[in-house]
Amino acid sequence: MSKGTLLYAQSGGVTAVINATASAVIETARARKIKVLAAKNGILGALREELIDTSRLSLAQVRALAHTPGGAFGSCRVKLKSLEADGDKYARLLAVFRAHDVRWFLYNGGNDSADTALKLSQLAEASGYPLTCIGVPKTVDNDLVLTDCCPGFGSAAKYTAVSVAEAALDVAAMAETSTKVFVYEVMGRHAGWLAAAAGLAGKNAAQAPHVILFPEVVYDEATFLAKVKATVASVGYCVVVVSEGLKHANGKFVAESEGSVDAFGHSQLGGVGPLIAATVKDKLGLKVHWTVPDYLQRSARHLASKTDLAHALAVGKAGVEFALKGLNGVMPIIVRTAEKPYRWKIRAEPLRNIANAEKKMPAGFIGKDGYSITAACRRYLEPLVRGEAAMPYAADGLPKHALLKHTMIGKRLPPFKG
Amino acid sequence: MSKGTLLYAQSGGVTAVINATASAVIETARARKIKVLAAKNGILGALREELIDTSRLSLAQVRALAHTPGGAFGSCRVKLKSLEADGDKYARLLAVFRAHDVRWFLYNGGNDSADTALKLSQLAEASGYPLTCIGVPKTVDNDLVLTDCCPGFGSAAKYTAVSVAEAALDVAAMAETSTKVFVYEVMGRHAGWLAAAAGLAGKNAAQAPHVILFPEVVYDEATFLAKVKATVASVGYCVVVVSEGLKHANGKFVAESEGSVDAFGHSQLGGVGPLIAATVKDKLGLKVHWTVPDYLQRSARHLASKTDLAHALAVGKAGVEFALKGLNGVMPIIVRTAEKPYRWKIRAEPLRNIANAEKKMPAGFIGKDGYSITAACRRYLEPLVRGEAAMPYAADGLPKHALLKHTMIGKRLPPFKG
Repeated sequence: MSKGTLLYAQSGGVTAVINATASAVIETARARKIKVLAAKNGILGALREELIDTSRLSLAQVRALAHTPGGAFGSCRVKLKSLEADGDKYARLLAVFRAHDVRWFLYNGGNDSADTALKLSQLAEASGYPLTCIGVPKTVDNDLVLTDCCPGFGSAAKYTAVSVAEAALDVAAMAETSTKVFVYEVMGRHAGWLAAAAGLAGKNAAQAPHVILFPEVVYDEATFLAKVKATVASVGYCVVVVSEGLKHANGKFVAESEGSVDAFGHSQLGGVGPLIAATVKDKLGLKVHWTVPDYLQRSARHLASKTDLAHALAVGKAGVEFALKGLNGVMPIIVRTAEKPYRWKIRAEPLRNIANAEKKMPAGFIGKDGYSITAACRRYLEPLVRGEAAMPYAADGLPKHALLKHTMIGKRLPPFKG
Repeated sequence: MSKGTLLYAQSGGVTAVINATASAVIETARARKIKVLAAKNGILGALREELIDTSRLSLAQVRALAHTPGGAFGSCRVKLKSLEADGDKYARLLAVFRAHDVRWFLYNGGNDSADTALKLSQLAEASGYPLTCIGVPKTVDNDLVLTDCCPGFGSAAKYTAVSVAEAALDVAAMAETSTKVFVYEVMGRHAGWLAAAAGLAGKNAAQAPHVILFPEVVYDEATFLAKVKATVASVGYCVVVVSEGLKHANGKFVAESEGSVDAFGHSQLGGVGPLIAATVKDKLGLKVHWTVPDYLQRSARHLASKTDLAHALAVGKAGVEFALKGLNGVMPIIVRTAEKPYRWKIRAEPLRNIANAEKKMPAGFIGKDGYSITAACRRYLEPLVRGEAAMPYAADGLPKHALLKHTMIGKRLPPFKG
């Protein structure tokens, strides 16, 4: 019987499978008789001492999290600064941890969260408080370094590839008298992983997507339009996939939406799809349609990848195991051990090697034309979208999501004025 | 052994299950030893004598159509005018039918197509050519009269309800520090059926969608904004569903995109979602996100409704049976015979009662506040999205679509100069 509490928190944009990770964390810790609290709305809940008692959830509820998208305990876009600049917040976190005997902190997020977990682990060590901090990976952007991929990405990738394949059949059927060019906008601020995933839909040059606009490749309108024109001439229609992070030669986003930024300092994007569509319409005079799936692509649990779900569960389980072993300041990462058949394992990687870094697409993953993916890219991506992850539907035809009523732990500290 | 050929053609916007109808048409006719041709790109193929020989398809290929979205033989947006105005085209169609011994014509489309099938049936009768014309229903807009619903709608409705439910969980998780208002744009030019379907996602006032903007309810910005503001205050966030057909009091579309029209004379819409989102951002100062699924909602075979698929197969089968019985100028329509449990049957309805009419949402289906659906609406919609329609995925994680190579029938007539 272990002494101490495990605190789990979700951070940043949620995914179709982040709750699967939560599910694995809770179930693994519960099996080891460890009490699990979950911070409400990520690190904010830890700062405010708003802690959810997961022991009130039945095992069935915990397991149902594995097929529920979104973030069941709430997430947030709040990035802590350096130990110096945000010293009061880090101190408060340690105070809350002490007050609730939190010995293990699992922070489920991307590279910003890995940074926060790392700083907390350093602070705890320096202050002599016995705390083990683990960064648990999650991001549809797939931009964490060292891990082969990020939980959440595979499902968004599958959603993207399947949606492009399906919509392309629609466009193909109607092209003679209706839409000639279809533009599909994908997420991905700085790395074209989801844009690349769309490429899985096409097995040859005639199949959609015919043009992928990567954030890694400077947008050149004339070359792009020529490619679209040639595709319509040869195929009869053209499906364009464009990343929200598409940039001009000067480094500016093509869709710099009013220059606003979020709490992490990222530009708020959106709208490059309609912009590219309008360009095609105006310059080529072709009928266009466009789609911006937005949150649909990262919450489509109904179309999750089986591989991705397995990854999400595995990092949750390993996160708890690493924590209980006292592996402070690490992240369970996914290692690809074999290509054919695809095999993978989890190992611990120090957070200092991961925090704040960003994995771009390798140059060898983008075709020479700048608009396609290479065979190497396909080999990398394909296992990640493989397999379907069944989920239960209710009699009314809608998914059976776990909609939890949270029981909060009583506060033991005065409110934080941060 | 019947003499004569059956011609099948797809018309207008395709759906997730129109190929299931095609599949049923071919399989039913084949079982009766009837030769089936399919017009390439709808009525255009019939005019041009571009006819596909479906006997070259294996039974496995024909059955695979039932899980392939889009329009496998091509569709088109071409509406024939009156017998007087387009007399040369109708005459040409009859000439092509004669040349290929076409005795049965099944036209799979919406109310415009029903009109064409009706006119052809009248012309054939007047000219003494033994032709039976059947209008086979299909439209995600669900706006055909007399039939209880339209094949294609149920799957788009399920896609909409599930996507709204999933995205709402994402928004809920992030609302405190990120998006407060999420705007989801649905198709539906003049009838709010798909907008209403989104309402299935929420079982109570706190659940998304919180606001549905129907084309049947005049858009009032001030009332709308007040409702959004109140929802954010009470729920913490607000999910808005808006129909592309949302109108101002003067009858103009809120998103009248450059006033362009398609071949059927419908305004080309799109963009009301981002417009509503911008209004919320500017007037309420709340962070917004928006999605426009566009073609994804009508091609998402991966999320098709089992009921809808059954309807699509049934109208195809009945279409052939009615044709072979010589029921000229009818449409197989779906009749709801019982509510609990839901039961339905197919019967023949004269096309003259269906052509060119448009079914709006009953007033009793929209809540008194103008932003929600009633219990009666829910009772009507729920059976249509019920059940999942499994489809095969390949080992690479993508759907196994039937991608047909068409074998064309040799031409017997000189080209048509229409």
